[in-house]
Order: sequence, then C-alpha cells, then structure tokens
Amino acid sequence: MNKIEHIGIAVNSIDTAGSIYQKLLNTEVYKIEEVASEGVKTAFMQSGPNKIELLEATDPESAIAKFIAKKGEGIHHIAFDVTDIKAEMERLKAEGFVLLNDEPKRGADNKLVCFVHPKSANGVLVELCQEV
Amino acid sequence: MNKIEHIGIAVNSIDTAGSIYQKLLNTEVYKIEEVASEGVKTAFMQSGPNKIELLEATDPESAIAKFIAKKGEGIHHIAFDVTDIKAEMERLKAEGFVLLNDEPKRGADNKLVCFVHPKSANGVLVELCQEV
Repeated sequence: MNKIEHIGIAVNSIDTAGSIYQKLLNTEVYKIEEVASEGVKTAFMQSGPNKIELLEATDPESAIAKFIAKKGEGIHHIAFDVTDIKAEMERLKAEGFVLLNDEPKRGADNKLVCFVHPKSANGVLVELCQEV
Repeated sequence: MNKIEHIGIAVNSIDTAGSIYQKLLNTEVYKIEEVASEGVKTAFMQSGPNKIELLEATDPESAIAKFIAKKGEGIHHIAFDVTDIKAEMERLKAEGFVLLNDEPKRGADNKLVCFVHPKSANGVLVELCQEV
C-alpha cells in the first residue's frame, strides 16, 4: 500500500461540511462528483499527498445514509492507494481478510476500488483504490 | 496543513491489532511507545508518507478506554502535520473552531499536538501535530 489516498467522512451536507473543512484545511474543494451507483455526492480536498473526501447520501438506502442514521457524522473509511488492486485483493484474501466485493468496482475520482470488511480490521472500513 | 500525518485507531490490544495491520499494510510495526500522561500504549506503522497509529488504553479512565467502551474499536482521530502549531491554533480559533487544549502538549512520536473538538468538524476528532 503506497499511501493513504484519502479519508472518507460521512456528512449530512457537503455544502455545509465543505465550508467547514475548507477553513479547517485552509484549502478549496477542487471537485464535486456524484456516484449514482452508491447513492452519494462527494467533495474532494487535498492535503499534500492525501485527500479528504466528504460523502453526502443522495439515497436514504445508501451505505452513507445508514451510517449517519446509526452513528452520526464522522469518519466512514480510510482508503489506501495500491498499484495493482487485483494482486492486493488476492494477497489480502490469502491472509484471511474478508473483502466486501469479489471484483474491483468503479468508485469516485476515477478509481477502481475494493472494501475490506471492518470485522477484519478492528472496526475500520478499509478501501483499496487504484488510479484508472 | 501539510499532509495527513497519521490516522489513530483505538484497539483493545496493540499486539493483536498490530499483527493484523502488519498483514493488511504489508509492513512492520517500527515503534511501540507508551504515553503515560494519556494512559495509552501506541504502535506505529508507515504507509508511504503517512502513518497508522494503533492506540491501546493502559488506564480505564483514559480517552481511549472510554472511546472503546462507548463505540468499540475503530478510527479515533486524524492527525494533520503542521509547520507551526501555535500559528495554526490561532488561525483555527479565529475561524471559530473549538480547540481542546489552549497550549500545544507533548504527544507520542516526538510531536507537539493539539486537538480540535469533534463538534467543530462534523464528528471527526482532528489532531494538529508538529515535529519537535
């Protein structure tokens, strides 16, 4: 794993949270992108080599809507940048980690992504992501 | 803020979690450090320019013990690397953020640290840290 690619934060509104995080990080939201398949709207900010992704649900059945209903706003996942997502998925499966998808799927920000079950990683939802 | 310095993960045991995260990240724990003033034992791993910090409570009254009792294991905080922590604290106070300490305090890994209240940052406990 090359670095933390981004931290995903579940928020009620990317407009409201975006203005807070722009002040916090002293930077601008450089991209807003909707991922209809996941029922979310995302806003990205840069912090050096890393990104912060704010996630707002657009669908009450989405994972982000359910997360917020259960836990409130807060950190949803950590994403690690990988060079070869398929190889990394095989390596983790062989180590006994439970993956939430069998094949990489298309995520926001031009990425192929795969999630590792939080039960495999001490309560942390881990995402692998490879730049397409 | 220069980058994500580390992600802090609250765990029941840094030995158990350390062996899981070493496999997950395909790297080694390079430092174990106790911070008696905070009632925690920490284990550090590197992921490119970023670190993962596992935190185990050594005191049932510590913030980490209380966090785990309430929420279970999981992500506890995000720490951002800053060049001048006092200037950054002043900037954030002027922007209306609530800080959890008035002066930088000594943290793990040879850092001066300050925390921003999660209510100021959409449920996320944010740490500023400056290399000493």
